[in-house]
Amino acid sequence: MKTKSKTPREAGGSATLLEVARTAGVSAATVSRILNGGTRVSASKREAVEAAIAALNFKPNLLAQSLKRGRSMMFGVLTQDVDSPFFAETLLGVEAALSGTGYEPLIASGHWNPKEEADRIRRLLARQVDGMIVLFGRLSNDELQRFSEHVPVVATGHELRAPRALAFRLDSELGGYIATRHLLDLGHRSIAHITGDLAHADAVDRLAGYRRALAEAGVPGDERLVVSGNFKEPGGVMAANRLLDAGVPFTAIFAANDQTAYGARLALYRRGIRVPEDLSLIGFDDLPSSLYTTPPLTTVRQPMFEVGKLAARSLLKLVEGEPADVEIPELSLVIRETTRRLR
Amino acid sequence: MKTKSKTPREAGGSATLLEVARTAGVSAATVSRILNGGTRVSASKREAVEAAIAALNFKPNLLAQSLKRGRSMMFGVLTQDVDSPFFAETLLGVEAALSGTGYEPLIASGHWNPKEEADRIRRLLARQVDGMIVLFGRLSNDELQRFSEHVPVVATGHELRAPRALAFRLDSELGGYIATRHLLDLGHRSIAHITGDLAHADAVDRLAGYRRALAEAGVPGDERLVVSGNFKEPGGVMAANRLLDAGVPFTAIFAANDQTAYGARLALYRRGIRVPEDLSLIGFDDLPSSLYTTPPLTTVRQPMFEVGKLAARSLLKLVEGEPADVEIPELSLVIRETTRRLR
Repeated sequence: MKTKSKTPREAGGSATLLEVARTAGVSAATVSRILNGGTRVSASKREAVEAAIAALNFKPNLLAQSLKRGRSMMFGVLTQDVDSPFFAETLLGVEAALSGTGYEPLIASGHWNPKEEADRIRRLLARQVDGMIVLFGRLSNDELQRFSEHVPVVATGHELRAPRALAFRLDSELGGYIATRHLLDLGHRSIAHITGDLAHADAVDRLAGYRRALAEAGVPGDERLVVSGNFKEPGGVMAANRLLDAGVPFTAIFAANDQTAYGARLALYRRGIRVPEDLSLIGFDDLPSSLYTTPPLTTVRQPMFEVGKLAARSLLKLVEGEPADVEIPELSLVIRETTRRLR
Repeated sequence: MKTKSKTPREAGGSATLLEVARTAGVSAATVSRILNGGTRVSASKREAVEAAIAALNFKPNLLAQSLKRGRSMMFGVLTQDVDSPFFAETLLGVEAALSGTGYEPLIASGHWNPKEEADRIRRLLARQVDGMIVLFGRLSNDELQRFSEHVPVVATGHELRAPRALAFRLDSELGGYIATRHLLDLGHRSIAHITGDLAHADAVDRLAGYRRALAEAGVPGDERLVVSGNFKEPGGVMAANRLLDAGVPFTAIFAANDQTAYGARLALYRRGIRVPEDLSLIGFDDLPSSLYTTPPLTTVRQPMFEVGKLAARSLLKLVEGEPADVEIPELSLVIRETTRRLR
């Protein structure tokens, strides 16, 4: 850093924005634009301003500016699990879309608990966020719409079109159909399904897609081959064990998400059942780690990075008073090495 | 929600805090405490206040309150990769420690780029965060200390003790020693090491620990068995391929982190080399997913959840002007199924 040799001012003795502008030889408006994360500033000006900020130890008070302008330049982002790879992908997309816009995400977790979700959103609103992104969760459309009376709201995993609220879902039913269809195309007829937590619409929809594909192919479903998981690895382990203990033969498993598939894979490994030689396995999500399971997992890709980006971009439009029309990203089949033709 | 049948006020026509207190039958101080996330409030009072907030459609302006009090009740959190499972674990610990304290994390990513890191911290400071948590990254101690002239700073992955700045690191050298020692104890003598990105002190230290363990055991190190990775899966794949192609025999690999081990595992799988039957493999981190690799990964556990919690708790002390003495969490060996005694 250029400023290492200079003595910073004492804390509290901060320079003014005007001093920064004068030192950098640019206008105050340019300094302000840079501070707000604007990108349409030349590299040379940006460097001059950054050097001046560092040299003067300038600490702008965006909080006071926010209050004056009536904008905090923050978006609230309600996630459910900060440590879930699924949500991490989505957050990364939100971050990418907001980068350079001047908006910063203020993140809170609702843990799939509608009471906690509403509480967290109220607290974000109290911090004057300019908009809310709600990633999945269990709030009702009514509740989402009520929050949109305060600030524009974009939600994923819901379906809603309102003046200041927009929610979209990927087509999980179609995804379940695609996964099952792939196994049918490989000649499998006895296909087990480990569901997600059926309190989630996505789990219900994937099960419906599975049933539709079987019915379309004229394969009678066997309800003993449908067992419930919980979208997490331990649920996948237990469900696979239940399937194997039930004694109903099957040659393939459709797991409701990749984490469930990882758990099922481990249960099969423990019993010496090889994937895909003895049994085919398909997941749902295409988490980054699914590229590195042994063997790499065949799955239905949910473009969560794109979903996050789309949510943030839609919110940027809504806060500008523009209409936000979304083209919902599509699911796609990613064939890797855990599925193979039935011999 | 109890309030579904009531008509919310129009946006903008928000009630006052006093009205909420009156409706709930509690004092204004109690309402304020709840809004700031305080936990020492009885459940009945909390419910009454929440019902009143919902019924009156109350939208407190914490931003204005913040400015008046000179506290934003936000902590800046600089992470490096929002989508890394390693950082996700740490963030979860931060979130857990802040829960109920009234402080909210404002998260930004520095992407291991010191210029970007400094820029993001300046922007968080401009939002008047009351303290900064810096998770790893490449800022110098000088820079961290300079930021601590504005607000207290707690950093992980650095070492620093200053009046308003505290940084601590886990003992990566010892971790590298523990991993290598485990393989030596199992009778391995030809032990390969896939390093992390050697621009990181942690990677350098783990390599030093590996060398110390070999030296202590009187095993001559072979530099052809040390290849560099980058802490990510693809680096592990490539490094393992380089090791296998070099033609120097080895019976075990110590990978600088779990993600590197996942990549190495896949490269071995592709060549039909079984783990642990043909080759032992140990990682570093103990990511949640290491429980579900096939077979589950032996690794050195870094308690990142605890690290995140410790960082947040230390910062809470520093902002209260209390001394923050940290007891640095210890690394531990987690023996699972990818290592076995050399036959």
